[in-house]
Amino acid sequence: MSTLLHIDSSIHLEDSVSRALTARAAGVWRETHPGGQVIYRDLGSDPVPHFDTRSGLARMVPGEAHTREQADSMALSLELIEEIKSADTIILGLPVYNFGAPSSVKAWVDHLIAPGHSVDPETNEGFFGDKDFLVLESRGGGYGEGTPREGWDHAEQWLPHGVYMLGLEPRFITAELTLANSVPAMETLKPLAAESLAAAERAIDAQWKAPVAA
Amino acid sequence: MSTLLHIDSSIHLEDSVSRALTARAAGVWRETHPGGQVIYRDLGSDPVPHFDTRSGLARMVPGEAHTREQADSMALSLELIEEIKSADTIILGLPVYNFGAPSSVKAWVDHLIAPGHSVDPETNEGFFGDKDFLVLESRGGGYGEGTPREGWDHAEQWLPHGVYMLGLEPRFITAELTLANSVPAMETLKPLAAESLAAAERAIDAQWKAPVAA
Repeated sequence: MSTLLHIDSSIHLEDSVSRALTARAAGVWRETHPGGQVIYRDLGSDPVPHFDTRSGLARMVPGEAHTREQADSMALSLELIEEIKSADTIILGLPVYNFGAPSSVKAWVDHLIAPGHSVDPETNEGFFGDKDFLVLESRGGGYGEGTPREGWDHAEQWLPHGVYMLGLEPRFITAELTLANSVPAMETLKPLAAESLAAAERAIDAQWKAPVAA
Repeated sequence: MSTLLHIDSSIHLEDSVSRALTARAAGVWRETHPGGQVIYRDLGSDPVPHFDTRSGLARMVPGEAHTREQADSMALSLELIEEIKSADTIILGLPVYNFGAPSSVKAWVDHLIAPGHSVDPETNEGFFGDKDFLVLESRGGGYGEGTPREGWDHAEQWLPHGVYMLGLEPRFITAELTLANSVPAMETLKPLAAESLAAAERAIDAQWKAPVAA
């Protein structure tokens, strides 16, 4: 049986572009995987804790030496890792806030990297090279080639390196200029925003389609 | 009277490189600013909360429409903004974890960006263009020009854009290859790591020195 891990991280609910995109992708996945199972995690409603001085080193300390806070943090790591292990496909909604990933997505990645559980401590090879990792990104501005803020999307730039240790290689589908619909100064960019969203939706609709037997 | 805002974010305590560097910088600042006042914040021990679906939109919603969670989140934003306002100089310890800034630093930046309080809502100009913002960065590997992981330090790449709206322009002093002292495979990089640390310390020691009157 196939399993999808569906993750959202937007701090918006009804009006979230990334949530709409992940919901659409989950719909396509269900259609193309009849009988498949979906695990859902909402980092936007229930962010996983930041690493801090009491819990953060849990993954580097042997279990028998764990403090209470480290043991709790490690248990959460194992839960998050188990979700990845169970899944064949992962979809992540990734809104860009202040030119970076939500802090909750960074904390999720931090929790996932645990030698012995998600990474081979001898070879440094990640355990999840066989997973399909599709990222549905939404960003308020336009940061493409030739734009004044080219290269300012640090969520897209960081994530492949952030999850590299796990063996995951994210594929991105991005809807951009999403603020054009609410920011008066971006009024003239509305058509481009609509085009970007439509292209993202088309790309999502084409996912996981098996060639139809003749 | 001069005021320094001293911020740490490492999840390590005694053995933190970035904490040692900020402590050194704070020492130089005190020497060069007799009678100055220091405000201290520890994002590593007490991270500020992630934005979430209940609190995250506080800065975009008029105060009179705030829920309890939004009002609490806004109050924290105003506290963090007040610390920046009070300071002439800000030093931030910035360790690189999983190729990015600590999630607590991202959450801190998210809290700071509040139209009307830190950014002019009409002109989009940040209020803090007059502050000196020195970042003491520590990173476990080497990500400089010509190295195999050139460009993998997404903390350094993101932060200037993350705080751009505030008018802040970070200056970086970086100690790199800090993992050489604990990772056997990096043994041969120890001399380079020591050199990088010594260069960072020299750069810190040269800060805020007024020319001596003849």
